[in-house]
Amino acid sequence: MKNERAEMLRRSIAAGDLAVGVGARDALEAKLIERAGFDFVWSSSLGVSASYAVPDASLISMYQYLEAARAMNEVIDIPVIADCDTGYGNANNVAYAVKRFEEAGIAAISMEDKKFPKDNSLLAGGRQELAHVEEFAGKLMAAKDAQRSEEFIVIARVEALIAGWGEQEALDRAYRYVEAGADYILIHSKSTEPGEIVSFVNAWDGAAPLVLVPTTYPQLTEEQILDLGKVRIVIYANQPMRAAVRAQELLLEEIKRVGGIHTIDKMMVPVSYIFEIQGVPQMKESEKKFLK
Amino acid sequence: MKNERAEMLRRSIAAGDLAVGVGARDALEAKLIERAGFDFVWSSSLGVSASYAVPDASLISMYQYLEAARAMNEVIDIPVIADCDTGYGNANNVAYAVKRFEEAGIAAISMEDKKFPKDNSLLAGGRQELAHVEEFAGKLMAAKDAQRSEEFIVIARVEALIAGWGEQEALDRAYRYVEAGADYILIHSKSTEPGEIVSFVNAWDGAAPLVLVPTTYPQLTEEQILDLGKVRIVIYANQPMRAAVRAQELLLEEIKRVGGIHTIDKMMVPVSYIFEIQGVPQMKESEKKFLK
Amino acid sequence: MKNERAEMLRRSIAAGDLAVGVGARDALEAKLIERAGFDFVWSSSLGVSASYAVPDASLISMYQYLEAARAMNEVIDIPVIADCDTGYGNANNVAYAVKRFEEAGIAAISMEDKKFPKDNSLLAGGRQELAHVEEFAGKLMAAKDAQRSEEFIVIARVEALIAGWGEQEALDRAYRYVEAGADYILIHSKSTEPGEIVSFVNAWDGAAPLVLVPTTYPQLTEEQILDLGKVRIVIYANQPMRAAVRAQELLLEEIKRVGGIHTIDKMMVPVSYIFEIQGVPQMKESEKKFLK
Amino acid sequence: MKNERAEMLRRSIAAGDLAVGVGARDALEAKLIERAGFDFVWSSSLGVSASYAVPDASLISMYQYLEAARAMNEVIDIPVIADCDTGYGNANNVAYAVKRFEEAGIAAISMEDKKFPKDNSLLAGGRQELAHVEEFAGKLMAAKDAQRSEEFIVIARVEALIAGWGEQEALDRAYRYVEAGADYILIHSKSTEPGEIVSFVNAWDGAAPLVLVPTTYPQLTEEQILDLGKVRIVIYANQPMRAAVRAQELLLEEIKRVGGIHTIDKMMVPVSYIFEIQGVPQMKESEKKFLK
Repeated sequence: MKNERAEMLRRSIAAGDLAVGVGARDALEAKLIERAGFDFVWSSSLGVSASYAVPDASLISMYQYLEAARAMNEVIDIPVIADCDTGYGNANNVAYAVKRFEEAGIAAISMEDKKFPKDNSLLAGGRQELAHVEEFAGKLMAAKDAQRSEEFIVIARVEALIAGWGEQEALDRAYRYVEAGADYILIHSKSTEPGEIVSFVNAWDGAAPLVLVPTTYPQLTEEQILDLGKVRIVIYANQPMRAAVRAQELLLEEIKRVGGIHTIDKMMVPVSYIFEIQGVPQMKESEKKFLK
Repeated sequence: MKNERAEMLRRSIAAGDLAVGVGARDALEAKLIERAGFDFVWSSSLGVSASYAVPDASLISMYQYLEAARAMNEVIDIPVIADCDTGYGNANNVAYAVKRFEEAGIAAISMEDKKFPKDNSLLAGGRQELAHVEEFAGKLMAAKDAQRSEEFIVIARVEALIAGWGEQEALDRAYRYVEAGADYILIHSKSTEPGEIVSFVNAWDGAAPLVLVPTTYPQLTEEQILDLGKVRIVIYANQPMRAAVRAQELLLEEIKRVGGIHTIDKMMVPVSYIFEIQGVPQMKESEKKFLK
Repeated sequence: MKNERAEMLRRSIAAGDLAVGVGARDALEAKLIERAGFDFVWSSSLGVSASYAVPDASLISMYQYLEAARAMNEVIDIPVIADCDTGYGNANNVAYAVKRFEEAGIAAISMEDKKFPKDNSLLAGGRQELAHVEEFAGKLMAAKDAQRSEEFIVIARVEALIAGWGEQEALDRAYRYVEAGADYILIHSKSTEPGEIVSFVNAWDGAAPLVLVPTTYPQLTEEQILDLGKVRIVIYANQPMRAAVRAQELLLEEIKRVGGIHTIDKMMVPVSYIFEIQGVPQMKESEKKFLK
Repeated sequence: MKNERAEMLRRSIAAGDLAVGVGARDALEAKLIERAGFDFVWSSSLGVSASYAVPDASLISMYQYLEAARAMNEVIDIPVIADCDTGYGNANNVAYAVKRFEEAGIAAISMEDKKFPKDNSLLAGGRQELAHVEEFAGKLMAAKDAQRSEEFIVIARVEALIAGWGEQEALDRAYRYVEAGADYILIHSKSTEPGEIVSFVNAWDGAAPLVLVPTTYPQLTEEQILDLGKVRIVIYANQPMRAAVRAQELLLEEIKRVGGIHTIDKMMVPVSYIFEIQGVPQMKESEKKFLK
């Protein structure tokens, strides 16, 4: 068994480049991200739970996250990294999930060292309880043991800065996770300044490349991240969904205001554009050959 | 068994008012539509298939359309009208589908008189083959026979104008469908001028209220529609999704252009706004009481 | 909103009768249980996880358990009691699950006071860790708070005997759970003698009726259970599946042995019998009226 | 992309052997079939629809058939052949389905030349309407065009004998389907004598191996089938489910009769046997290493 997409993701960072990906809530957003030229899609737990209008707190099921990631993967050619929260339970759940995500052709999963059920890391006042470091190391070992292809990637997401436990705890955990088999380390921060992250990156001398998610510190550009060295992956985790909500609320207000849809044409792409994204032209080509 | 949402929809048009609803692709869009004050949500086949980035051609399954409509219904308090394409097969499929959609709490389904598998009605060069009128009348009878609550609504969608068969055919079909039990008639048109629809409405003297979907003739305002009389429901079937795609493409281009997310804040709502739409505040209230 | 099946279950025990139900792994087994004249179907976690050939250890998702229970409920007229394990996480997960199961028309859920992820209660050497009593009481309160109909039933399953914590702990927990809102108490035991359970029942003087699952102490007959008083529900949780496995293994061996299917007719019902259970005759009646 | 299971199936018949498989309704039955030593599992439409207690008439969705086949494939190491009915619609639906089944790791699909929605082929009085031969040939071409691995197998199921159109029509269609790309020909019969099938096999001189499903003519043994030559695959499509129903009805009757479960031990396997089939021992091994 070979995981072609995982290989693609590994290759894209091998040369010292930065792989840049964007978070999607569904296959449509994944398609737009691919068309815009990004390197991978982040199947976002915030996004998928938001697509159900349900809190990002381990409420919808692993199965639903899996099906969302699968649907994305089916319609794009770039890799999908699946946000797998805490791994959906204990090490058994992790092993079970890894098999399913890998069978679905997903290139990589990311798993965070919080307790199940989690709260979103950026939620003000959210529960941010860290799992015991050895418990989480066990989960990472279970994940690496469960994967069937060599290429599949397991990203350990360190939440020590989110939980307020400080840089040293974050570093200690990250080293332990690499030892346990993590391929990359995602160091997460909700600081509105990049200082916290930059400090961690500078202090890091582990073997694994780093992954950043600069949602709360957007000042940090890709160029600056590249200059830091060590970071190989950047994830813009949720911006498209947030742009959609803004645009849709403006549109809906306008429809309400004018009592019709006669003033909104410039706010939208045409229907035919949607058809194209859906792959209708390819289907029509196929139809010509096969539909008798 | 009582269908409270169907009753709500029936009530909202009983007084001669226009019920105005908007098409959603998922629960998040449904929530935005409710928050903007519309009367119902249209669970759009174009929307749901587009959320899978798959052509709107009866490719994804009834089950997936059902689950999308169910997810919408679960998080809003206004009625959902489910776009059920051609009923997913023959009269048996219709009876089966009606039971499932009604059990999911859906207020109404709309079913169109084309052959399965269908093409999207607005697709240039699409296959627009009409079912035999008696076959479709049988499907409507099967639907009305299958529903368990009195309130559940079956909308017959007449595609004769879409297929180019002319107004008389459309009228003949519509009368037959009302006789077969259709509660409302959705008369669809892809003309870019409202004339075709206005002519049909003027000619109509059947017992059932009419439903319009003015995607291609946006000039026709709600006020003008009300003046026509006879029309009680207007559906803006796909505009939010089209606004999302436009906004997201602009956003993704900008991220690509500047190599970061430092310039896009004004194009998006904040993350905390997403949390609110997801119902995090209500969950946190509940947590205070029950999470020990 | 009214839960007709919950009302049916409440009614069936109100007169002091014993409601007797059997565990199903899917809708087919549920149908057989209904046809055999039992009072309700137990949507069994062991059964549903076994239908996936996956350990009964919180591996498959709440969504899959929900869909299995829904599929059962759709094809039978007697109530379904859904085995909801530990409630799939914390009090938030419980509230979320209760809403979904109730929307699916399920009459009752049972929830056990173990930690998530659980092991099957009858597993030799399984992890049988109890949740803190107040944590579980909070989950029960969350469940009762989340239900929308008055009739919906929440069963608290006490695992103190399973975990080896003794009768007093079991009683203390059961009283606390009734206080927290549990409608019935399921007292579980893996003792191969009924003594442990009989002792608990005799000691019990709480307000809630008791539920027994005599898998490991089959000597205890319904008549004896009735004589104990206090018990109103008996669940035979997994016997049909176990009979199926035995019969199927014998059949498969025989096919292998003789190199064909010429000797197995008496081991099976005819295909036409399956058609009848599937409801083909009803479909054919409907077809005559509606399929043109 | 390589389809290892398809290769396994191809290999098992390459030497002139007979591959013998059995129909499953779910992963549990698939597991029993594998354990009994058969060569492959048939993901049966009759079985899967029966597991929902719904007629085998294209009512449940492609998605549900896909998920059932996927769940089987995940827990066994032998190939799965998926019964894909008529291909779920037209050539577009076929192309879509083939991609999904192949991504799920399914080795082969079987597709029959009836109209959608179908009736079960063995249903007395069922609708057995054949598709136009060129329409079905187009579907086969679409299937072969859609597959991504070389090994994936498309079986054309000829229903001309079922529909009463005679042997010549069956042969003509079979030759045309091979020309269109079918890898194997499944020739189906509901005759209670093997004569009809034997005559077809003798007349056949096409390039593709034949597949038989001797549900109604069980007299024909594997030895006799091998002697016919040309046939390389035999499917016992539904016997385990029929054995389960018989055993379960006897068990449920007995429970009803004696008012308890004290007399049924010999009719069942023990619970611990179910645990073993579910893979609990493997999970416990993994737990020892990874659960901290």
